[in-house]
Amino acid sequence: MTTFPTSLGTSSEDEIRLLGQDLTGDLMGSVGFGELAFWLVAMRRPTPGEVRVFEAVLVALADHGFTPTAIAARLTYLSAPDSLQGALAAGLLGGGSRFLGVTEDCGAFLHAVLDDLEEQPTDDAGWDAVALEAVRRARAAGRYVPGLGHPVHKQGDPRTPVLVGIAREEGQYGPHLQLFEAVGRVHEQVLGRRLPLNGAGVCGAALADLGLPVEMLRGFALLARCAGLLGQLAEERRRPIGMDAYLTVDRAAEYVDPRS
Amino acid sequence: MTTFPTSLGTSSEDEIRLLGQDLTGDLMGSVGFGELAFWLVAMRRPTPGEVRVFEAVLVALADHGFTPTAIAARLTYLSAPDSLQGALAAGLLGGGSRFLGVTEDCGAFLHAVLDDLEEQPTDDAGWDAVALEAVRRARAAGRYVPGLGHPVHKQGDPRTPVLVGIAREEGQYGPHLQLFEAVGRVHEQVLGRRLPLNGAGVCGAALADLGLPVEMLRGFALLARCAGLLGQLAEERRRPIGMDAYLTVDRAAEYVDPRS
Amino acid sequence: MTTFPTSLGTSSEDEIRLLGQDLTGDLMGSVGFGELAFWLVAMRRPTPGEVRVFEAVLVALADHGFTPTAIAARLTYLSAPDSLQGALAAGLLGGGSRFLGVTEDCGAFLHAVLDDLEEQPTDDAGWDAVALEAVRRARAAGRYVPGLGHPVHKQGDPRTPVLVGIAREEGQYGPHLQLFEAVGRVHEQVLGRRLPLNGAGVCGAALADLGLPVEMLRGFALLARCAGLLGQLAEERRRPIGMDAYLTVDRAAEYVDPRS
Amino acid sequence: MTTFPTSLGTSSEDEIRLLGQDLTGDLMGSVGFGELAFWLVAMRRPTPGEVRVFEAVLVALADHGFTPTAIAARLTYLSAPDSLQGALAAGLLGGGSRFLGVTEDCGAFLHAVLDDLEEQPTDDAGWDAVALEAVRRARAAGRYVPGLGHPVHKQGDPRTPVLVGIAREEGQYGPHLQLFEAVGRVHEQVLGRRLPLNGAGVCGAALADLGLPVEMLRGFALLARCAGLLGQLAEERRRPIGMDAYLTVDRAAEYVDPRS
Repeated sequence: MTTFPTSLGTSSEDEIRLLGQDLTGDLMGSVGFGELAFWLVAMRRPTPGEVRVFEAVLVALADHGFTPTAIAARLTYLSAPDSLQGALAAGLLGGGSRFLGVTEDCGAFLHAVLDDLEEQPTDDAGWDAVALEAVRRARAAGRYVPGLGHPVHKQGDPRTPVLVGIAREEGQYGPHLQLFEAVGRVHEQVLGRRLPLNGAGVCGAALADLGLPVEMLRGFALLARCAGLLGQLAEERRRPIGMDAYLTVDRAAEYVDPRS
Repeated sequence: MTTFPTSLGTSSEDEIRLLGQDLTGDLMGSVGFGELAFWLVAMRRPTPGEVRVFEAVLVALADHGFTPTAIAARLTYLSAPDSLQGALAAGLLGGGSRFLGVTEDCGAFLHAVLDDLEEQPTDDAGWDAVALEAVRRARAAGRYVPGLGHPVHKQGDPRTPVLVGIAREEGQYGPHLQLFEAVGRVHEQVLGRRLPLNGAGVCGAALADLGLPVEMLRGFALLARCAGLLGQLAEERRRPIGMDAYLTVDRAAEYVDPRS
Repeated sequence: MTTFPTSLGTSSEDEIRLLGQDLTGDLMGSVGFGELAFWLVAMRRPTPGEVRVFEAVLVALADHGFTPTAIAARLTYLSAPDSLQGALAAGLLGGGSRFLGVTEDCGAFLHAVLDDLEEQPTDDAGWDAVALEAVRRARAAGRYVPGLGHPVHKQGDPRTPVLVGIAREEGQYGPHLQLFEAVGRVHEQVLGRRLPLNGAGVCGAALADLGLPVEMLRGFALLARCAGLLGQLAEERRRPIGMDAYLTVDRAAEYVDPRS
Repeated sequence: MTTFPTSLGTSSEDEIRLLGQDLTGDLMGSVGFGELAFWLVAMRRPTPGEVRVFEAVLVALADHGFTPTAIAARLTYLSAPDSLQGALAAGLLGGGSRFLGVTEDCGAFLHAVLDDLEEQPTDDAGWDAVALEAVRRARAAGRYVPGLGHPVHKQGDPRTPVLVGIAREEGQYGPHLQLFEAVGRVHEQVLGRRLPLNGAGVCGAALADLGLPVEMLRGFALLARCAGLLGQLAEERRRPIGMDAYLTVDRAAEYVDPRS
């Protein structure tokens, strides 16, 4: 008979187990929510230092105001106020390659470079050499280097140094962040212009340094955004903008002949 | 000109603001993720005691194993592994009236009863009288009383006393939880059988006692489930069951004449 | 052993069956797409006259330009261009109570009134009496009468007489449409102002007259919208507006103190 | 001032326009639903022969029984029966690379090969040479050739010859289908085994021959599936299997130590 193996939630009549723990005795009241989210994916309980870096990332990614995903969630809530889950899902569906994907792309890019190294550098000059080679290869292959540039924070994304600092304080400043900073120092030599290391990118580097699987990094950006979208939807209830946003677009519609 | 008011995220070239705070200076590294989620909806920073109760709720609701929503998320990931956000959204879309909705329904039910009181009782006998009247009215109107009964935990849901205990420890045991416990004591007189107070229900009561808006309670269940679904999807990557689950259903398909 | 009964698709190594038919021999090339959609829900093949009315409804509901759902789909596509299914799903999630739901609400309202009749009227005066009573009851219960009013087509929705005409031509003008027209004639006596019978409402009445289950009427509005959203997304590829729509909202953001 | 150009739906107080046509005068009752879906994406009205091929594709792709997407939709409906749109969206979210994506992948593969040709062959031998080179290149690059193989129809997918036949009858048998058939004849020389040309693949080839944009082909598979999912959800109402499917998986859960 087919069985379905799992290490997550199971329950009997008088007990609920999760991750091999007793939910009520071991977890509720003792484990933070961010801590549990880390544990659920990594299959190990993070240390307090890891939790602090991890939650700093989630806080950094939670909300960026009227992003396309926030607007999509609000418009969906306007149309279907009976289904909060639908509005939230609509917002999360924008968590793809273009906006939210940078976190995962950056973590994966750095991870792949590190995987190819026989030995990790021991000083900045060594990291710079690795970074230079990685940026050159990306450019030669016509691929973009994730984590560089920001449409608003052109002179530097304020999240980047702060997250690096928290990671250092907690002993979580590892090879992904080191390589990311090196990319920040050397990319101008290849790309011909200086771009800031953006917040989505540094979050990906920090999550990868925490040992989280790079294929799941987008998932943490989505979890963070889930909290942000709840904030957006709660605000849409209190002080709605969805109808005005819709009308602003609809009233500026201009018919174009389909054959043109 | 139309403007779009918001108290959430805004940014200038060198600063990112969220909830009237400086994201990097005031929030990252200083505020937990659960704490921020509370703040984003309630528009006020919770106290440490409130955070502990709030996160205990999120931990309680995060994952319940192979629920319909977890299976839906895994099957969607099987079909479209290129879109983690799609699999997550598919799982959250099951967060409706039947399974995840109990948290919100219970909070709203208790809240409505409390809203109608001129004065709150000061002892258990008083709460029992209020609860009895509320259960009677619900039954007379043909409505179900949310938060009662559980298909597995028939003799008592282990989460209920634990969450009440945490709320008491933190000074967050308020009228919603008191009324909920009273419902637990008196409903048998009306309904003719004794049902346990379930975990989803007690979570709704606890969230309502924290002062969170009852129309948004489903949102916190969804946030909790978001973490659980990431755990399910990470496990689906490591040790997949989606294909077997699908084949188990498909191979047991039995054709029925459409006219029958 | 549990089996899973179905009358829909099943297949063996050399045959695919659907609805009890041979997919390749009986359906492909012989059955239209709208015809199949009707058949899949109603479990019977519609007549050509029924197909014409049914497809006229789908055509009427397919696209209404820059609706909240169309904008949500385009913004989601902007954020996650790798996932067309996500953008489409985001658009459909707006198909809830407020905009797309009128079709189902109207069909269900008319259906419930008809269900309560012992005998159906035989002339307009008889229908007017039934309609008057139904509108009075709805108003007394504080419920809205679905299918009345339109923000743009204030003097009359052009779809209404056209769909009624098609239904008459095809012998599909039944009690739901008759009652709906009667509501159009009498509601002013109760509501104190004359509102047009809107297109979403007449579509619900026509679908109900075709014998389709009223609990599924929203589904046909969603199917129609699915085609419209594909048009919106194809246009977003050719001549994008998503980025401008997003920036129009974001640039008009105005920070409001969260305590106000 | 920013304007938002569109050739789709617009309306004034007394008229609704769509695709440059008068919705009520030119489209309702005159245009089929499949025909409109084609028009909305292609920006031109298809001929009757094109409509017949197009609708045969939609019919072929509408439903395949208890697929992962159908099960996901039913489980979501079980959990959230108040939101038909959520269940439908959950089902469509499985329309990604693995199952539904073959249609688009195949159309895009064939299209890219044709784009590289200076001149199209005029006989089967010529097409075979082009196909052989294309399959060789795909294999050399480690890419799979889309449209080959089927888990059930191992000796041949019954949809393939039928759709080719319909396309020939309607004068829509063009270079994509010719190349696809050539791939069917020659791939064994490169891949070392004979695989059937599957139904999803031939649908992609046929849609591409109709001149539809290859980047949108997945969209038509989703539209077709939308009708199929409505059938699944209507059946779930009449004769539910969701609860049993869920319990079948949940009861066969087997706890595995997370450290193993």
